[in-house]
Parts: sequence; structure tokens; C-alpha cells
Amino acid sequence: MDRTALFKLSYGLYIIGVKDGDKYGGCVVNTVTQATASPITVTVCINKDNYTNECVKRSKEFTVSILSEHIDRGVIGVFGFSTGKDRDKFAEAPHSLTPAGLPYINKGVTGYLECRVIDFTDNFTHTVFIAEVREAENISDEPPMTYAYYHDVIKGKTPKNAPIYAGEPQAEPSGAYTCGVCGYVYPGGAEEFERLPEDYKCPVCGAVKSKFILKSGGNL
Amino acid sequence: MDRTALFKLSYGLYIIGVKDGDKYGGCVVNTVTQATASPITVTVCINKDNYTNECVKRSKEFTVSILSEHIDRGVIGVFGFSTGKDRDKFAEAPHSLTPAGLPYINKGVTGYLECRVIDFTDNFTHTVFIAEVREAENISDEPPMTYAYYHDVIKGKTPKNAPIYAGEPQAEPSGAYTCGVCGYVYPGGAEEFERLPEDYKCPVCGAVKSKFILKSGGNL
Repeated sequence: MDRTALFKLSYGLYIIGVKDGDKYGGCVVNTVTQATASPITVTVCINKDNYTNECVKRSKEFTVSILSEHIDRGVIGVFGFSTGKDRDKFAEAPHSLTPAGLPYINKGVTGYLECRVIDFTDNFTHTVFIAEVREAENISDEPPMTYAYYHDVIKGKTPKNAPIYAGEPQAEPSGAYTCGVCGYVYPGGAEEFERLPEDYKCPVCGAVKSKFILKSGGNL
Repeated sequence: MDRTALFKLSYGLYIIGVKDGDKYGGCVVNTVTQATASPITVTVCINKDNYTNECVKRSKEFTVSILSEHIDRGVIGVFGFSTGKDRDKFAEAPHSLTPAGLPYINKGVTGYLECRVIDFTDNFTHTVFIAEVREAENISDEPPMTYAYYHDVIKGKTPKNAPIYAGEPQAEPSGAYTCGVCGYVYPGGAEEFERLPEDYKCPVCGAVKSKFILKSGGNL
């Protein structure tokens, strides 16, 4: 069995938004798919360790912000590589509320959905939610962000809680600076990285320069 | 609610393969997503009216052929726009058998998966299957076919049994020839179509020229 065959499945990139009492939360997922056309339902798969998962189970409702290629990399960093248990992620991102009061990202997205859970199945590490779409609105004509674009063009990494996480095997150049938050490897040499201005930020997650760690060479 | 917001969700394109006694069957789907990494499981959503759906429920196993941009359009036509109840679809397509004897497409694909159903949920018109991946192999380095590429570049249509089918509203040029099998609209005028050689075939589904119907203008 060659598990790299699974890398050829195609996905988009989305931020799930939830309301937990008077707090908001959310996370990045790649697994939103329409399941039926009438009524309109979607499936979405969320790691059981994610704070967002317990909020969806409790509140039975969530939003899907459909990320475009123009999404701020820092927004992916906040929602994809940190937990909302002790951080108000939406306070750090441009957002609006649906008529029902749920948060969604309103910039760098093609639009959003508001969904109500009708069923879910716990499946090993993740939960597969089935939900009816109650609201759907377009926001921009920007091209949707695909996971392939995120991975190949932006050189984005896969969060450990993603269903497709496979340890990210890849060669690191000898002496490469690597983002300690999201794992992004600076493509130039160590000396070039050190000459970057002090306000340099990780292009994937927006972490400041001091979060980068010099790693020695070798394949992971 | 603007249901066109859902058109921005990203998908690939796949052929599900099944074995029903000594017969093979299959259909096109766009809804294969990895659900967990350990063990490796996937979700796939199949219309309850499809012969393939009943075969998967009965046999508990299926293959996923991951279509590439090089897939023969006729293969999509056979698997996407006709039923396997009275047609041996795999006999009309290049295929091989997995060690367990299940059929998969072996040309114009990036690879295939062989899956065993571990759970399923009937959800209105469709069934959401959760399955463990038992085998996975790469076949080519061709770029995976995305649904956006199929729709925007190949001008492919959506089968009525797809979860994302929305009636395909679109303008048809006045007096356009339209494929009676898959709905593809010949982009040139009627006179140009009539001058095409008699061995012309629909670029989407491979139907012969005589399957085309002259439709009068107007929006659907």
C-alpha cells in the first residue's frame, strides 16, 4: 500500500465558525462537501481533539467560510495552528455575524454557509457531521483556495489534527530556518534568513521572525 | 439564501468500482474525502438511486479510481451518464482488478484505492459511506482532475444524481446542438455542427454525432 496515492484526492480549504455561549471559536478544515441537493446538506469532518468539535456537538450549528486564494496567511495560522480553548481566534480576523449570530470570515473568502447539524458519526480520531445548509451567501469572485494551491504554491503545512496529516515527510535543506508555529521552512539559506528585516513574518501563519528555529539538515 | 455560494466548494472527480457477484459496476462521484489518517478512512457520498449504491451496501467493498485530467471523456460519459443495471460499464473502459478482484480504471487516473465499508448513514437522497482504505497505489503523475477543471475547461455537465446537481441553469445559444446523453452544448453554431465529420463524438461523454439534438435558443 502506497499512502501517497491519497495525496491526489482534491480538497478546498475552509474555516469552521462556532458560538459557544458568548465566545466564538473555529478551526481550519479541508473536508467540506455537499452531500445532497434537496434539501441542501453538507458533510464536514473535524478532529475530536479540536475545541471546535465539542462546540459543534453542543450548539448543533456552525458556519463554513469558503477561503479564497486571497485569504490572509495569518488567518490560516491562527485558525489552523493554535487552539481556541484559550484564544479568541475571531478577534484576530476580519469577521461578521450571520443573522443567527454565528461568526464567519468576511475577507479573503468566496462566501459562507450557515449550517445546522442533523446527524454525526464518531469515526476513530474524527467526527463526520452531516448538516443542513440554512444560509449561503457569496462575498467575492476571488478564486477558491484549493488544498493543492495551499500546499504547492503557498508551501503551506498540514496541521497535525487534519484527516490527511501524514507526518509531512520532506527534505529540509541543511541549516534551514523553520517556523516553530506551523512548520514552514524558509526556502533560502540560513544566512539569507538572518539578513531579513526584523518585521519579517511567516508567509503561512504570520508568526514573527523570532518564532523561527534553525534546524540542522536531513530528511524527516 | 444564494445557493450558488456552494459552487465554490472544491472537489475532485472519481469513479467508484464495485463487484456484484460476477458482474462489475460503478459510477462517477465528486465526494471522496479522507476522514482519518490512522487508520486511513475515507467518506464517499453516493445517490440511493444508483445501482452502485446497492452494490456497495451488499458487498461492503469498493474501489476509488482517482481521475486525472487525461481521462478519456467517453469513460466519464459511460460511468456518469448511464446506469449499470443493464450495461457492463467496465467492459467499455481500460481497467484492471485489485488482488481482491475489484475493478478499477487503469488509464487516465493518478491511482486507485480499495476500501472496506465500516459504517454508512442514509441522508435524504444519498448515502454517506465511511470506509477503511485497504490498498492504495499510484499509477501516473498526471494532474488530478478537479471538478472545477471538468466544469470550466472541459465544459462537462453534472449528472442528475450528483449531490451538487442544481438544474444546470445556463444560456444556450440560439439553435445550438446539444448532446442528448450528457447535455454538452456544442459551442459553434448549428451550421458548423452539421459540417462536422460523421465520426465526431461528444467531447464529454463520447456519444456519437447522431445523439445530438438541435435545441432552440433561450435560457433554461
